[in-house]
Amino acid sequence: MQKLKDGSGMLNSFLGSRGDYHSAQVVMVGAPMDFTVSFRPGSRMGPGIIREMSKVLETYSPYLKGDIEDIPLFDHGDLELSFGNAKKSLEVIYSAAREIFGDEKFPVFLGGEHLISLPIIKAAFEKYGKELVVFHFDAHADLRQNYMGEDLSHATVIRRCMDFIEGKNIYQFGIRSGSEEEFVLAERKTNFYPYKVLGPLERVLETIGQRPIYITLDIDVVDPAYAPGTGTPEPGGCTSTEILHAVHLLGRRSIIGMDIVEVMGYGDPAGITGVLAAKILREALIAISLGSKEGER
Amino acid sequence: MQKLKDGSGMLNSFLGSRGDYHSAQVVMVGAPMDFTVSFRPGSRMGPGIIREMSKVLETYSPYLKGDIEDIPLFDHGDLELSFGNAKKSLEVIYSAAREIFGDEKFPVFLGGEHLISLPIIKAAFEKYGKELVVFHFDAHADLRQNYMGEDLSHATVIRRCMDFIEGKNIYQFGIRSGSEEEFVLAERKTNFYPYKVLGPLERVLETIGQRPIYITLDIDVVDPAYAPGTGTPEPGGCTSTEILHAVHLLGRRSIIGMDIVEVMGYGDPAGITGVLAAKILREALIAISLGSKEGER
Amino acid sequence: MQKLKDGSGMLNSFLGSRGDYHSAQVVMVGAPMDFTVSFRPGSRMGPGIIREMSKVLETYSPYLKGDIEDIPLFDHGDLELSFGNAKKSLEVIYSAAREIFGDEKFPVFLGGEHLISLPIIKAAFEKYGKELVVFHFDAHADLRQNYMGEDLSHATVIRRCMDFIEGKNIYQFGIRSGSEEEFVLAERKTNFYPYKVLGPLERVLETIGQRPIYITLDIDVVDPAYAPGTGTPEPGGCTSTEILHAVHLLGRRSIIGMDIVEVMGYGDPAGITGVLAAKILREALIAISLGSKEGER
Amino acid sequence: MQKLKDGSGMLNSFLGSRGDYHSAQVVMVGAPMDFTVSFRPGSRMGPGIIREMSKVLETYSPYLKGDIEDIPLFDHGDLELSFGNAKKSLEVIYSAAREIFGDEKFPVFLGGEHLISLPIIKAAFEKYGKELVVFHFDAHADLRQNYMGEDLSHATVIRRCMDFIEGKNIYQFGIRSGSEEEFVLAERKTNFYPYKVLGPLERVLETIGQRPIYITLDIDVVDPAYAPGTGTPEPGGCTSTEILHAVHLLGRRSIIGMDIVEVMGYGDPAGITGVLAAKILREALIAISLGSKEGER
Amino acid sequence: MQKLKDGSGMLNSFLGSRGDYHSAQVVMVGAPMDFTVSFRPGSRMGPGIIREMSKVLETYSPYLKGDIEDIPLFDHGDLELSFGNAKKSLEVIYSAAREIFGDEKFPVFLGGEHLISLPIIKAAFEKYGKELVVFHFDAHADLRQNYMGEDLSHATVIRRCMDFIEGKNIYQFGIRSGSEEEFVLAERKTNFYPYKVLGPLERVLETIGQRPIYITLDIDVVDPAYAPGTGTPEPGGCTSTEILHAVHLLGRRSIIGMDIVEVMGYGDPAGITGVLAAKILREALIAISLGSKEGER
Amino acid sequence: MQKLKDGSGMLNSFLGSRGDYHSAQVVMVGAPMDFTVSFRPGSRMGPGIIREMSKVLETYSPYLKGDIEDIPLFDHGDLELSFGNAKKSLEVIYSAAREIFGDEKFPVFLGGEHLISLPIIKAAFEKYGKELVVFHFDAHADLRQNYMGEDLSHATVIRRCMDFIEGKNIYQFGIRSGSEEEFVLAERKTNFYPYKVLGPLERVLETIGQRPIYITLDIDVVDPAYAPGTGTPEPGGCTSTEILHAVHLLGRRSIIGMDIVEVMGYGDPAGITGVLAAKILREALIAISLGSKEGER
Repeated sequence: MQKLKDGSGMLNSFLGSRGDYHSAQVVMVGAPMDFTVSFRPGSRMGPGIIREMSKVLETYSPYLKGDIEDIPLFDHGDLELSFGNAKKSLEVIYSAAREIFGDEKFPVFLGGEHLISLPIIKAAFEKYGKELVVFHFDAHADLRQNYMGEDLSHATVIRRCMDFIEGKNIYQFGIRSGSEEEFVLAERKTNFYPYKVLGPLERVLETIGQRPIYITLDIDVVDPAYAPGTGTPEPGGCTSTEILHAVHLLGRRSIIGMDIVEVMGYGDPAGITGVLAAKILREALIAISLGSKEGER
Repeated sequence: MQKLKDGSGMLNSFLGSRGDYHSAQVVMVGAPMDFTVSFRPGSRMGPGIIREMSKVLETYSPYLKGDIEDIPLFDHGDLELSFGNAKKSLEVIYSAAREIFGDEKFPVFLGGEHLISLPIIKAAFEKYGKELVVFHFDAHADLRQNYMGEDLSHATVIRRCMDFIEGKNIYQFGIRSGSEEEFVLAERKTNFYPYKVLGPLERVLETIGQRPIYITLDIDVVDPAYAPGTGTPEPGGCTSTEILHAVHLLGRRSIIGMDIVEVMGYGDPAGITGVLAAKILREALIAISLGSKEGER
Repeated sequence: MQKLKDGSGMLNSFLGSRGDYHSAQVVMVGAPMDFTVSFRPGSRMGPGIIREMSKVLETYSPYLKGDIEDIPLFDHGDLELSFGNAKKSLEVIYSAAREIFGDEKFPVFLGGEHLISLPIIKAAFEKYGKELVVFHFDAHADLRQNYMGEDLSHATVIRRCMDFIEGKNIYQFGIRSGSEEEFVLAERKTNFYPYKVLGPLERVLETIGQRPIYITLDIDVVDPAYAPGTGTPEPGGCTSTEILHAVHLLGRRSIIGMDIVEVMGYGDPAGITGVLAAKILREALIAISLGSKEGER
Repeated sequence: MQKLKDGSGMLNSFLGSRGDYHSAQVVMVGAPMDFTVSFRPGSRMGPGIIREMSKVLETYSPYLKGDIEDIPLFDHGDLELSFGNAKKSLEVIYSAAREIFGDEKFPVFLGGEHLISLPIIKAAFEKYGKELVVFHFDAHADLRQNYMGEDLSHATVIRRCMDFIEGKNIYQFGIRSGSEEEFVLAERKTNFYPYKVLGPLERVLETIGQRPIYITLDIDVVDPAYAPGTGTPEPGGCTSTEILHAVHLLGRRSIIGMDIVEVMGYGDPAGITGVLAAKILREALIAISLGSKEGER
Repeated sequence: MQKLKDGSGMLNSFLGSRGDYHSAQVVMVGAPMDFTVSFRPGSRMGPGIIREMSKVLETYSPYLKGDIEDIPLFDHGDLELSFGNAKKSLEVIYSAAREIFGDEKFPVFLGGEHLISLPIIKAAFEKYGKELVVFHFDAHADLRQNYMGEDLSHATVIRRCMDFIEGKNIYQFGIRSGSEEEFVLAERKTNFYPYKVLGPLERVLETIGQRPIYITLDIDVVDPAYAPGTGTPEPGGCTSTEILHAVHLLGRRSIIGMDIVEVMGYGDPAGITGVLAAKILREALIAISLGSKEGER
Repeated sequence: MQKLKDGSGMLNSFLGSRGDYHSAQVVMVGAPMDFTVSFRPGSRMGPGIIREMSKVLETYSPYLKGDIEDIPLFDHGDLELSFGNAKKSLEVIYSAAREIFGDEKFPVFLGGEHLISLPIIKAAFEKYGKELVVFHFDAHADLRQNYMGEDLSHATVIRRCMDFIEGKNIYQFGIRSGSEEEFVLAERKTNFYPYKVLGPLERVLETIGQRPIYITLDIDVVDPAYAPGTGTPEPGGCTSTEILHAVHLLGRRSIIGMDIVEVMGYGDPAGITGVLAAKILREALIAISLGSKEGER
């Protein structure tokens, strides 16, 4: 019988992973920030519910015939952020992202609100430069210049990225909400594929080659029926089967990091949003891992 | 900085509208009645959750390239009804509907149970006469002669309408529940399109011309996955994308009023039924407004 | 006015049925067991929520033009099980299943966890022998040799059936989760149709002839959007419309018993999982009843 | 092993009672009415949650050293009421109450809203005449002449009783909410003991002798901390220990019937209101039964 | 029958009040801020649930024999704050507080997190100077120099007040949580009455004379049984009866403004925290109003 | 700024403790077992919610002027138990308890259902022999010989302890539910203090001397208002203030281990049961630690 002195008990890490930072290829970090959301907070507990609900999943993907246990993964837990201070919190996230990229590892960030993607994409841009491409899956354009007087907001995050990344290197999928200005801007400046996810993604992947791609996935790109536990649910999105299929396609190209954001940590009915986010992550990580192995050959 | 003395704070009106009755073209009224429901009450708080959840939506519709802020809309708030007295409550609703129709405005009623539609349709019939057409979107036929001994019930509402409107002027979409008698009656007397919404609606719109149409939409026409917060959920309905597309089609014809009913004000998981109802309303109002402008040209 | 002395009030039986055991053709039994589940318990209250939510449904199926009131059905209520003693509880279920099969009646068991199907299938096998075919609808393969050290577990139930039924007499539909070993085993030994339900079912029904078929349906074969109230939700499943259509097809063949398992009795958002299970049961029983009448002719 | 053919399974009756009407001394009836409530409905499911939560209790009272299984009790289940028609529903309740009183049995009604007490008290008055005393435990005076235009309302129920019972035969305990008019009326006309329950009750019991007493207990007399699941929670009430002690005192006098009302069937956090109501009922019935036996001696 | 054109429908204001700013003596303002909380956010919806639950209360206080309708009260609704920007949000609140004090009105702020009290107390200090006394009811000392690196935090608010108010003018009641440093500081610098509320308050009121008192009441001073819907529940607090009695005592002295903070807008079981906050406010405002009238005489 | 490579992020351990087994004096272990409960399961997630809610607490106790950070505490996390196999699970718990006692450490077990206490008390008895005293705080006597046919059940746990510990060494506090047989047995065989906690405890502590005491505390000893999140809530219990005071008293005597059981991991309204359990643990551990230090002097 197992001895207590020989180690710790059941962990709250993602899919029970027990890796450490140094040997890991993939580093997972929670960013429990939800200060700038306009409607209902709670995504600060998002990393928690994703980890908790990941327990209902197997580590093996029958779709891909791969197992996440074959990927050296370290779940670091959540960062300690300054509650209510968006600017400082973004600096902490930036520092973590820089460290992971600097150590040639693959970062996976769990939101938290969408604003957390800004410093990560910044760190990615500093590493990969103008080659970097961002894939943005979301119900909302997030292209406002400011929102309720704030430059830094969950509703401005992609616009802020355009301060350093050219719009044409940003691909937006599934967008179905925004102001008129945002839609005009998106149509002019970004690669904009509103309403749909799967078809446009397939076409884009044909042309994107092996440029480095960062994935930022707001769970509300999926319809609220499938992902009710989110801050600003927007009816009319894709199904769980569609988003999983989209994620499978990503294995074909060169993904260098990803985040999944806006999962609410409470008020998620029966945890179905948490488990969907966990399955998206499992499938994405296995697809990317298998894809890159294929690339090695 | 804004002064308190200059006006009121954040409002609980639909999409933050601040219009007044006199200048409004569209008048929205809540009818917080749920006395005759057979299973679980709670739709009396339906108007409240629709308004509350409308805050997560933009006023702009990218689907239609129109903005609800361009429509003169007044949200009157809820009517004061006699709790437990269905008959008196229906009179109050009738009076409100007559006033709105009489002032040549477009009424939007938020239920409440489905029975609230009866006095509104009566008022519409008094104004538009035999030309009037009713579009009924619902999971249930609502064609019982009486229900548990009552003539006036959420399960008899369309039958009661047939006391003054000819069945052939009633179009029923998406019905998938009822007694054998109701289905026999529907097949004989109304324009009956069970199970489906979008295909039949497109065909009907081809033939309906510019007759005045009243829309009564029971949220349970949508599958419980997309609209769980309702009194009598019935699996096997349409998706959120389908109902939104159906609503877009309505802009092509002459709609003269509408209601949305049976949204439950509590027990709505993560508010997704409320936000779907709010989005249906936004899209419907913009579609109808743009459609009528086109007609003006 | 009804007298109290003349009978009991409103019942908590399935769809209000008032039959008795002796005259019944269909006997419904609740098996409130959830001891071996690995993630979240609560399916012990599954029979309760299925009965409770069945009240929102009509007894008439417009899809099939049949009424469950025309089927002699007795809802026995729940069995008394030994809490925490899986082995003894399975014996009680086995005894009940044997009694029903022995009396030439059609058993319907309401779970509870999936392990309850094992003794029922055993009793069915004892009656029907090697002709018996099992249709297994599920998100999970349930083919582990043991799970967390236990032979008898919700994750081993189909493997335990293979101790007495040949794998080729087991048809698995909709499976999308399991270990690598389970998927390898399934592909070799059972009739295995992963991910999909409707297409494979139609093809199988073509070839199965009039062999006796037992149905075991884990509600998590349906996507969590449609059936969130379940112990181990697995995104990527079928819709409510698909599962209802699948059930309609069953009327064509010779079904000899069925169970529906893993509906959670609390934490079911707005009861939508309970009502879906109830509707599946209503449709299945009417389809099977009409099918067998057709066979008589 | 128990045979299915020998009887029904686990029951949803109060504390698992299996009596029948004819041999019962106590007849329990659910009155699932909540049409006239002003704030939140849901007490129609009150009888259900009281029965469901009664399962956590023992049948034995250590306080009183008595067992409810020694009392011939029949739980009839719920009455079928006309949803939305308060008047007709009250007639059904009246008929049931008359039948029970007429058969010399002790009625226990489970609400539902408080208005259900009116026809029961009427039937009690017809049997016991001017000797009848009513004990009213409540947070609210319920003495309005009408409420929102209605004579029959949960807020007028005691006033309606004063149409046939003299105010001085009504004892009100624990009242802490009402209009100024209600408090003035109560102070003039009823035996009015606001805010407190236990002290005044003890004093009243000293003086009341063996007059027949009917108990109507609105669960909101207890503080919302102890009974949150109620339609109009009013902070500042008594504790669970106090109300149980009050109930124990009742055994000393001649109680002829009782009801417990305004328990909400959903939205009751962790079911604690339901279990409190069930324990109050168990203690009251045992206390009254032991008291009357003592009287026999 | 009431005409729509004659006014608006049922309001979401506190206790249905319909006043306007200019004629009001009491101005109520919501401050929907919850950015700096460390555990669970949601108090931004606090003002909403207080208003919503106030509907279950009468306007009349039988305790005090006064009616809130006799107080000229204007509920302005919520301020528009910069989400995620604590500093700017505090400026908006400060401006509102200054305006109300400047117009010689009595401010009532509904939180939101406790940090909102800082700018209000600042504005009060600017008006009343060194005479000003602050009564602080809370489970937590809120005396940290900084919290998680932030000066401005819900855990530092009283310490920040001590930057301009002398500690001896701050009276702390009911405190039962804090760091060792905070307790040492409190014992040295403020008038510190840990654990208890009622006894110390009575003694303090004896000595305080007619100095101007500002009340800041964190709802978690009450035990979580009575006020579960709060961000950092701390067992061992007072009861609802005690806090209401404390509030009644305040009428004897010269209160110049108040706030009630840390009520969570969702996750409040059955709304009991909201209704307690609303009743505290009703009783406080009536007590203060009656007290000041007495003073006038 | 902190480096990811230097350690893990925010932990889910009790009060954020970061100790290790070897240097710890107190070892905390979760026992996530809820198989034998008769009503509602969910206590398997009890350890999780206690840890989660412990985050709202300070590490410092102002009552005792001690800090839990001064106690070498290791939170091992949860044991891996065989789901559905009570016997094997109890062996795992026994093994863990033996290890901790064997290493001269102080065990704290987090339930889980009450049956988990049996193997721990067995291990304690093996170490301390007939000197051992058990303090049992509970609403239920837990003295059944068997329950629903099972010897090992949450309702038999103290009876099973009496198989090896003499009844007079078991002190039962606060019991208010059980069968007649249990109450008769308790009165004859154990030191039985029904209904009350604080008074009897004070008297017992006077006489108990420095015998080794094991504490088993079922959270339902507290009233459901204060601890609603439990499997079998029983109205009429003590308050949070009383149980905290009781715990403070324990510091005076020689406590050698403890458990807290029957906290439900979901359905705990606003987490108030979890936070109460966490505070009881913090206070108990500090009281015991300070008490034993005093003893050293």
